[in-house]
Amino acid sequence: MFKINENYLKLPGSYLFSTIGKKVAAYSSANPDKSIIRLGIGDVTQPLAPAIIEALHKAVDEMGKKETFHGYAPDLGYEFLRNAIVKGDYESRGADIKADEIFVSDGAKCDSSNIQEIFGSDNKIAVCDPVYPVYVDSNVMAGRTGEYNKETETWSKVIYMPCTKENNFTPELPKETPDMIYLCYPNNPTGSTITKDELQKWVDYANKVGAVIIYDAAYEAYISEDNVPHTIYECEGARTCAIELRSFSKNAGFTGVRLGFTVIPKELKCGEVSLHAMWARRHGTKYNGAPYIVQRAGEAVYSEAGEQQLKEQVAYYMNNAKTIREGLISAGYEAFGGINAPYVWLKTPDKMTSWEFFDYLLEQANIVGTPGSGFGPSGEGYFRLTGFGSHEATVEAMERIKRL
Amino acid sequence: MFKINENYLKLPGSYLFSTIGKKVAAYSSANPDKSIIRLGIGDVTQPLAPAIIEALHKAVDEMGKKETFHGYAPDLGYEFLRNAIVKGDYESRGADIKADEIFVSDGAKCDSSNIQEIFGSDNKIAVCDPVYPVYVDSNVMAGRTGEYNKETETWSKVIYMPCTKENNFTPELPKETPDMIYLCYPNNPTGSTITKDELQKWVDYANKVGAVIIYDAAYEAYISEDNVPHTIYECEGARTCAIELRSFSKNAGFTGVRLGFTVIPKELKCGEVSLHAMWARRHGTKYNGAPYIVQRAGEAVYSEAGEQQLKEQVAYYMNNAKTIREGLISAGYEAFGGINAPYVWLKTPDKMTSWEFFDYLLEQANIVGTPGSGFGPSGEGYFRLTGFGSHEATVEAMERIKRL
Repeated sequence: MFKINENYLKLPGSYLFSTIGKKVAAYSSANPDKSIIRLGIGDVTQPLAPAIIEALHKAVDEMGKKETFHGYAPDLGYEFLRNAIVKGDYESRGADIKADEIFVSDGAKCDSSNIQEIFGSDNKIAVCDPVYPVYVDSNVMAGRTGEYNKETETWSKVIYMPCTKENNFTPELPKETPDMIYLCYPNNPTGSTITKDELQKWVDYANKVGAVIIYDAAYEAYISEDNVPHTIYECEGARTCAIELRSFSKNAGFTGVRLGFTVIPKELKCGEVSLHAMWARRHGTKYNGAPYIVQRAGEAVYSEAGEQQLKEQVAYYMNNAKTIREGLISAGYEAFGGINAPYVWLKTPDKMTSWEFFDYLLEQANIVGTPGSGFGPSGEGYFRLTGFGSHEATVEAMERIKRL
Repeated sequence: MFKINENYLKLPGSYLFSTIGKKVAAYSSANPDKSIIRLGIGDVTQPLAPAIIEALHKAVDEMGKKETFHGYAPDLGYEFLRNAIVKGDYESRGADIKADEIFVSDGAKCDSSNIQEIFGSDNKIAVCDPVYPVYVDSNVMAGRTGEYNKETETWSKVIYMPCTKENNFTPELPKETPDMIYLCYPNNPTGSTITKDELQKWVDYANKVGAVIIYDAAYEAYISEDNVPHTIYECEGARTCAIELRSFSKNAGFTGVRLGFTVIPKELKCGEVSLHAMWARRHGTKYNGAPYIVQRAGEAVYSEAGEQQLKEQVAYYMNNAKTIREGLISAGYEAFGGINAPYVWLKTPDKMTSWEFFDYLLEQANIVGTPGSGFGPSGEGYFRLTGFGSHEATVEAMERIKRL
């Protein structure tokens, strides 16, 4: 009789968004006259920019003609896209990354969950707390996290690095030495970020202890302040310790288009074994490339018109984030983030739990957000609102909160 | 210090297509006047059908407007596509599959390599020999295959089921009981297929011994004969033992568009644990959906215009396969397949090895094919030609072979 992967059975239920959905549905059905504003979503709402639409149409036309049809894509992705990435994301930041160190994929979620596969099952991971759940869950499935403690909501073999207002949402170097360190800046869910000097400390630490940093820079486009690194390869020594994950979802609205990439520098090795070669083998064996038309759309992101249009799109969401942040502060809340990230992270008032505040906000202001405890134990007592809604709804939501 | 997944180091080099590339390049450069015909490829060459192009343009336009923009897709894929699949691929064959048993993905390669992840690492797999290398390699990476024997080119913990002309390329039930059985019909690389009665024997066997069948039906559209099953769910009892993998790559030319799906019936269980629920958890945690525009293109495959146009496209490739098969036979070769599959599998003449025949065909007829030994030890002495080239080139290739 075949056996299943027992690690899957250890996973606690993934109830955060389904519980939110159920609570909202129940409230709506009991209060059909109330207009609900959803600021809990991490999904974009603005349409694709004209330069992207144009590139997609052009590529579709190419696929309809024998002379310009494209079948299987090259393993690493098309050179036109990888060259555009190098120029737009790395050379422009003074970071030394070559086109053949870039692996084009269908998004950062797949890459961030698959990357652990090239590591041994006895590696110890370190994550921020709160954290994007995919990092931990993918390691649970691979049997790397030990046992789950329902009381503390933590895994016995995971090193948690609390990020709270007390440490300005920047974790300290862990006391126990990890093998794999997941970092995400600008951060989901806290909306915080890290300075170049602080990130340099992590790079130095990883090189010293022989850890690998898996650096998720999906929200890089939202950075507005100086001295905040756009890529970990701005730091010296990152080429020997860091893998970077990038996405087109939030900078170009590709959540429903699907495109991302992973960077693995050729110097990143375990003894003689190159992680670049391992990931290339995985990519070649278990993946078959992002669609040609989508890779052309990705190229358009770096065109002059594309860059201009997407700057406006990001500014639209960041204006929402600013509206939320400033609205909350003027209403007496402690609010964080929203300056270099589309997320605003607020401290719940009057020692309410995250879920108590969820109910309060839904019932008293008809606003939906995301309870911070859903991202990890140190998220308890916090709450996430996002800038991805429409501006009108965002303004209205802040008016309601001020009236509470 | 972080550790790597040591299983990757066990993988022998993947040199088949790179060796072919090098040999062809060397020959071309030494003989610049020769016109080389490539019949080794598994990639399609015809442009996307007009109905697909139209659907893509329409969906691209939707993505450019706020009212019709689509962000993250539903976890299982859009209902419009899953409903079209149920109607077009299952109801029409009398197979009882529901829309919520279908998981839309970006292709059968990803699914066929990822599906092993929900099974325990101590399961024993059985594969046909020769075989599509991804089934074995993905299990090697997961540490399920034991040690590699360079002499026999086999893994100690894999059950190989030889498929040769002696058994009409249909494997016998294995002597040693497997936990997971990979079957691919119509078959790549042998171009053979299986009757419904024969497949029923495998379903009965799997249910009896408690094995799961991973059934790759990527070439289903090429079936031309009656009594050949288009889906394993035409067999009684398949809902309790079989997972089916499907692709849009070969029936609709989507190798560069990327779309596929996996079917897991809800009755398929290990004890109380539903494989459907496990795959749903994996899909939700480690995947983020196929692009909206691509799912709309998939829907168009099942439209009246789409079905008609794709029937013609498949007929074009199958006419090539027929030309190859009949050309080889009239030139005195033993040739197999090419009736229910785009692949023709030939026995090399004069006891030549697969690679000797590769060199012979390249040098004497300037034709590139794929050595059968590249697909497994029982492929030695065989050679694969494909119907995916242009008709003119295919006819010319057969003229050259007849003149040898």
